[in-house]
Amino acid sequence: MNVIRQKIKVAYEYPVYFTRGLFTDGNPTFDTCFKSAAAEPHKVMVCIDQGVARVWPGLARDIEMFFAARPSRFELILPILRLAGGEAAKKDWRQVNKILELAAERQVCRHSFLLAVGGGSLLDMAGLAASLIHRGLRLLRMPTTVLAQCDGGIGVKNGIDRYGAKNFLGTFAPPTAVFNDFDFLATLPTAYWCGGLAEAFKVALIKDAELFESLLAGADRLRRREPKTAAAVIEKTARLHLDHIRDGGDPFEFGSARPLDFGHWAAHKLETLSGYRVGHGQAVAVGIAIDTCYASRQGLLDADQRDRILKAMRQVGLPLWAPELRQTDESGDLAILAGIEEFRQHLGGRLAITLPKGIGDRIEVHEIKRAALHDVLDFLEASYAECTP
Amino acid sequence: MNVIRQKIKVAYEYPVYFTRGLFTDGNPTFDTCFKSAAAEPHKVMVCIDQGVARVWPGLARDIEMFFAARPSRFELILPILRLAGGEAAKKDWRQVNKILELAAERQVCRHSFLLAVGGGSLLDMAGLAASLIHRGLRLLRMPTTVLAQCDGGIGVKNGIDRYGAKNFLGTFAPPTAVFNDFDFLATLPTAYWCGGLAEAFKVALIKDAELFESLLAGADRLRRREPKTAAAVIEKTARLHLDHIRDGGDPFEFGSARPLDFGHWAAHKLETLSGYRVGHGQAVAVGIAIDTCYASRQGLLDADQRDRILKAMRQVGLPLWAPELRQTDESGDLAILAGIEEFRQHLGGRLAITLPKGIGDRIEVHEIKRAALHDVLDFLEASYAECTP
Repeated sequence: MNVIRQKIKVAYEYPVYFTRGLFTDGNPTFDTCFKSAAAEPHKVMVCIDQGVARVWPGLARDIEMFFAARPSRFELILPILRLAGGEAAKKDWRQVNKILELAAERQVCRHSFLLAVGGGSLLDMAGLAASLIHRGLRLLRMPTTVLAQCDGGIGVKNGIDRYGAKNFLGTFAPPTAVFNDFDFLATLPTAYWCGGLAEAFKVALIKDAELFESLLAGADRLRRREPKTAAAVIEKTARLHLDHIRDGGDPFEFGSARPLDFGHWAAHKLETLSGYRVGHGQAVAVGIAIDTCYASRQGLLDADQRDRILKAMRQVGLPLWAPELRQTDESGDLAILAGIEEFRQHLGGRLAITLPKGIGDRIEVHEIKRAALHDVLDFLEASYAECTP
Repeated sequence: MNVIRQKIKVAYEYPVYFTRGLFTDGNPTFDTCFKSAAAEPHKVMVCIDQGVARVWPGLARDIEMFFAARPSRFELILPILRLAGGEAAKKDWRQVNKILELAAERQVCRHSFLLAVGGGSLLDMAGLAASLIHRGLRLLRMPTTVLAQCDGGIGVKNGIDRYGAKNFLGTFAPPTAVFNDFDFLATLPTAYWCGGLAEAFKVALIKDAELFESLLAGADRLRRREPKTAAAVIEKTARLHLDHIRDGGDPFEFGSARPLDFGHWAAHKLETLSGYRVGHGQAVAVGIAIDTCYASRQGLLDADQRDRILKAMRQVGLPLWAPELRQTDESGDLAILAGIEEFRQHLGGRLAITLPKGIGDRIEVHEIKRAALHDVLDFLEASYAECTP
């Protein structure tokens, strides 16, 4: 028996920009990002979340004019695709296939770009398509929701839901660049606006007490969408998220590195149980409420800390309870409990749930005690039954 | 405009073993690879190339017994899948989906394994499935052809052919381990045996004059499948291939790093033009013959070097011509010529074709001169029309 041990290292670097009006005259962001001249124009495919296209009817035209003004560097591929967004749209390959088909038909190459404009689900589908075409063309993400701008749209993952399992199929594939354009946030429906703030609470509670204090202090301004407060929270949350991926030592989660998934075991299951009535951000809020109360019962938070957390979340408009938490399965167990095993399967290996330890720090636990969890649900329902999505 | 520049590094390490009788008692290879104990058994899915399963009817049973003897570390998922192999099998998602469905049904986790036993196409499909499930479970490759053992089965790529384009969809995803078991080579059909040697010529001609001399000196022994000579050539070719991936500075080919693809622009197109009558290895041999003669016409090889190359390839049983090279498209051009643009699209950016410069060194050219190529085809047809696959 002979053996060759192959070792390879792959380095990724991508900028995450925070701007307003990316495609308007005088905004230097895009040209700053692509300042070196290309030998020949890069093909650019574009897909826009239908929900975004409806609220921003001039967007496609703006994008066409933007690239038409840069003919030596970019060749826009038409048509601009309008794809369904939202969690329900990523339950099969259909939207992804539309991108694959256009790429094949218009003969893009591995150095071509896919610009994806939309919420987290649209970006997940576009990211998967981009990572598969010629084994990976260049993805430009333009997240249009609070959630995507501070969390899902800036990281290294993509995916679609198949066989009833959240993100069952996907890849780790960093983008070439991310453009967070705050202008899009002005038109977000309330549920999306508030929902995105759940990810800010998530990272604050387990990593950054100062961010939590600013969420608490700014709760009313955040709820009212005061732009400066919101921009500061999004940028801070994004930075914490990016730092976590970079410094965790295992950005593609080969081993047992933990992504920032506090509150997510229940969130993923709640999304499914509700038939996607409850959006991801709102589901994360409910998941955080559950795990916060559970942490408190385990002595990791005192009652005052727990109540300050729930109060702040409530104040920005986040839900803390959903009636779907009472659904039972065939055996009479609470259906939400199956989320624990599904969560373990997705990450692999031993179950590991992140819980806050005080505000701003965290520990991992390897089981969820069922009796304690039942008590937590009773408490939340009794206290916050009206705080539903 | 603010910006955060995200930098991440991902390190991969995997062993490539060379052995015989991996699943037989007393072979320590597998246990050496997985010597650390697991907290709980890892699930293992297995898929076997139908062609291999036919010639090795006891293989599935051997694998079952092998894992049954290691219950604390592995839990074999049944059934063992028997999937169609060969290039034609990877032209859609069907075989890949069989793996995805079993993974979903049997609830594998990201730390579970997929063991794939077969030729390059089977490994490509299994690798794609493994890289997508939960964003990547652990792939064990067991290549069963000369070609896969020294080239396709040891690298970092996978893929399927879609929309008429070779490997249009795929990912870069290194395996967890590769087990090259020489026993499988004994039962290879002649075309596969010889075809695999084309990849040895490929790497020898552009990287290693010494390997070329040993191919020339050992041509008759290689044709007769003399085990020691074959094993040495396979191991040497594999090592050169792995070194190229590791040392090229861009293992996932984001920029313009060149994979080892001398002779491949024509090879990929010839496979398609022939409706896969011509296998990958044989197509590569014809592609090498074309680019060798072309390099000679461009003054990069002298006529003596060219003739020694063609002679050695012929002597091991490789084809140097295929009648499909004369097919024309609607406009009356040679259909093979479209392979040049398809090749450029897949790698992205500017066309770059690797040619030998003397034996054992190489240069890149950025165009193929049509008149010279026509002369080359005339020469090959006139001299080697009988050397067809």
